[in-house]
Amino acid sequence: MRSILLLGAGRSASSLIEYLLKHAAQQQWTLTVAERDLAQARKLVQGGEGAAHVVELDAAQAEARAALIAGHDLVISMLPAFMHMDVLRDCLRLRKHVITPSYVPDALWPMDAEFKQAGLTVLNEMGADPGIDHMSAMRILDGLRAKGARMEAFESYCGGLVAPESDDNPWGYKFSWNPRNVVLAGQGPAARYIHHGQLKYIPYHQLFRRTTRVALPGLGAFDGYANRDSLKYRGIYGIADIPTMLRGTLRKEGYCEAWDALVQLGCTEDGFNLELPAEATWTDYLCAFLPEGGGTDVRLATAKYLGLEPTGRAMKKLEWLGLFGTGAIGQAGLTPAATLQRLLESKWVLGPGDKDLLVMWHRFRYTVENCTREIHASLSVIGRDSIHTAMAQCVGLPIGIGAKLLLNGQVRQHGVLLPLAPGLYNPILDELAELGIAFREQEVEA
Amino acid sequence: MRSILLLGAGRSASSLIEYLLKHAAQQQWTLTVAERDLAQARKLVQGGEGAAHVVELDAAQAEARAALIAGHDLVISMLPAFMHMDVLRDCLRLRKHVITPSYVPDALWPMDAEFKQAGLTVLNEMGADPGIDHMSAMRILDGLRAKGARMEAFESYCGGLVAPESDDNPWGYKFSWNPRNVVLAGQGPAARYIHHGQLKYIPYHQLFRRTTRVALPGLGAFDGYANRDSLKYRGIYGIADIPTMLRGTLRKEGYCEAWDALVQLGCTEDGFNLELPAEATWTDYLCAFLPEGGGTDVRLATAKYLGLEPTGRAMKKLEWLGLFGTGAIGQAGLTPAATLQRLLESKWVLGPGDKDLLVMWHRFRYTVENCTREIHASLSVIGRDSIHTAMAQCVGLPIGIGAKLLLNGQVRQHGVLLPLAPGLYNPILDELAELGIAFREQEVEA
Repeated sequence: MRSILLLGAGRSASSLIEYLLKHAAQQQWTLTVAERDLAQARKLVQGGEGAAHVVELDAAQAEARAALIAGHDLVISMLPAFMHMDVLRDCLRLRKHVITPSYVPDALWPMDAEFKQAGLTVLNEMGADPGIDHMSAMRILDGLRAKGARMEAFESYCGGLVAPESDDNPWGYKFSWNPRNVVLAGQGPAARYIHHGQLKYIPYHQLFRRTTRVALPGLGAFDGYANRDSLKYRGIYGIADIPTMLRGTLRKEGYCEAWDALVQLGCTEDGFNLELPAEATWTDYLCAFLPEGGGTDVRLATAKYLGLEPTGRAMKKLEWLGLFGTGAIGQAGLTPAATLQRLLESKWVLGPGDKDLLVMWHRFRYTVENCTREIHASLSVIGRDSIHTAMAQCVGLPIGIGAKLLLNGQVRQHGVLLPLAPGLYNPILDELAELGIAFREQEVEA
Repeated sequence: MRSILLLGAGRSASSLIEYLLKHAAQQQWTLTVAERDLAQARKLVQGGEGAAHVVELDAAQAEARAALIAGHDLVISMLPAFMHMDVLRDCLRLRKHVITPSYVPDALWPMDAEFKQAGLTVLNEMGADPGIDHMSAMRILDGLRAKGARMEAFESYCGGLVAPESDDNPWGYKFSWNPRNVVLAGQGPAARYIHHGQLKYIPYHQLFRRTTRVALPGLGAFDGYANRDSLKYRGIYGIADIPTMLRGTLRKEGYCEAWDALVQLGCTEDGFNLELPAEATWTDYLCAFLPEGGGTDVRLATAKYLGLEPTGRAMKKLEWLGLFGTGAIGQAGLTPAATLQRLLESKWVLGPGDKDLLVMWHRFRYTVENCTREIHASLSVIGRDSIHTAMAQCVGLPIGIGAKLLLNGQVRQHGVLLPLAPGLYNPILDELAELGIAFREQEVEA
């Protein structure tokens, strides 16, 4: 018997747990789910209790965490990204393989040699984005390289959205994963990409204005905004000299214009706490970000300040949230972003009958034998229900398959890894396709 | 003999050193100037060598720093603000009084009781702004309180600028203090103030657009932008219920519009390093912040992106900096802000013949016996030369006078202090007035 420890059983863990339990007998493994919220963990292991233990764990408690890690063969960390480093240090010390869906923390690279020396593998960026995006891109890039193609451009977009049949609000958005990450999206260092050989940097306050329209057959039109540092993936993907490269995030058409309004106001700021009392209204909240002297009509003052059409679609989205209403903000002393998050969590609910949608879209432009062509590859996954969402499937299943490969000795490389090698991406993408998560590819004359 | 240790002898230390040396014989004190740059320190003590020792110190070296502190009676820290906490911890441990011109670090308040218990005084915010602004405001506020006035509004602006006779560039600005602080001004948590009882929050990217016009007799028109957290000074000044309160920073009229252009572009971002090579031109730097597809005329593309008049005064300021030129950025691998700072340091030079200007302007609005009135108080100081700047005088002299009061036992309070009590502000403001740093007050019918 092999033993797997899953740290954290939030929204994105449902399909991973289902996968691990479904294969438990055949693969001869047991699963321990360690989570602070026992009821949530029990809900996710329901029906698979035979192979699963649920234990209560506050992962910030170093001793309890290390004791659990010590007793297992493989650790999967689905904790918030900022907690990964503690887990990774434990795993090095206690000699355990690890898998996470998160970006490689900067502090992890210096530990690469030690992990290698210990014969341990750290599989990172193993979810949807980052994760499936890397794997699907690398499979196509490796194919093009084999043909001797020169890469001209690579653009890649991904979005966790709501399925068309459940899309019943003007934002075209409901939460299918961590709401805090959605509210703080794009904060931090400027987004970076390269276009026709020119480096480009977008500061946060321009991010949701500098969007690209992406139309996906059968799914409609989306706004794509640049995601973090696309430049560093040139080296990681082995296309250091590519003149155009951009990784982005998709939202339903029109979302970014209205989200930009919230950014311009300052509603997504997270660095200080508001002094407004809990009984302050959403109008009070909004007015705190408007300059004085804008008049008594808050809608008009807002539209004027932001340069928006007073009855346009961005204003309608703000109106739908209740930002011009008399509802109370309900909790004092939070940051503007955390206050807004509470409102959004009450509005962008993925209801029990709702389904989410995960879309991914790659465009490769290349030249081979003096002929320039494009490959478009797209993935769209609709969730089974509000628990086994498309997001949970696309984040969890590659991790589950990765765990299987790792425990069966099929991952030969040690150290800090991303899923960039055929030995990893081929079996994972093949099994995902069998599970219904498959890209459609199209060759296009450029 | 009493001994004073001055840590750090940068731009703002010249007049402080002059004051301490001038009073050395009469006050029976000696001065040690500890600085990393020996030549700079020697330049500032020139002529007063009898009473001054200059020692080389990298203040980050804990042992050397503590050894020096241990050997003196009073420590004045003019180090960069982030280094103060180490000095303050040393001073508590080694039982020394301290003075700094900087904002009280959050981590200092919890040490208040220990400083009190040890009979030690930590005088903070003892420079110009913060410093003279507090003292002059408190003197007027205490006067109004004694009259039974109800405070309606308090606005306070300060700016370190260039004197009219040396103002020969379109920005109306030259560096009279730490250039890095000027480039990063306003970054961090949103600026906070209150207007007619309404809390107001301004995120960084709106800060230089939400300016107030301030006209000062004989000095012309200025743009005032909100400075950090004005809300917390309501409690500190004892005017917790005041409906309008704003502390701001002044720049020459038109500066903020052009600086906002740099903010909107992303040129003041400091969270990541540019990939541009050292030989990239300033036009390349600028283009990295422009969206693609703006055309080949960079001036037009910039004006269009920012919504500026192509031949307007903001564009002329950017042009004067050379941002549309073929000059090389000269150093690779810096942040956008640090790259810009190098350019500004070559352009906004306070030359040997130049004089700077420090202006401060307070407006108090109050009601007494059903009559609403205003007091306007203004200070303008012109520097003696490019060493003994107005900035150095206004930062250094209150510290020097504070040191005298402290060493002579005239500061009775212990613990963490701001210069808010009459026992501190009266002797300091009176001596400053003798030294030519005096406010002009005016009563105005509101």
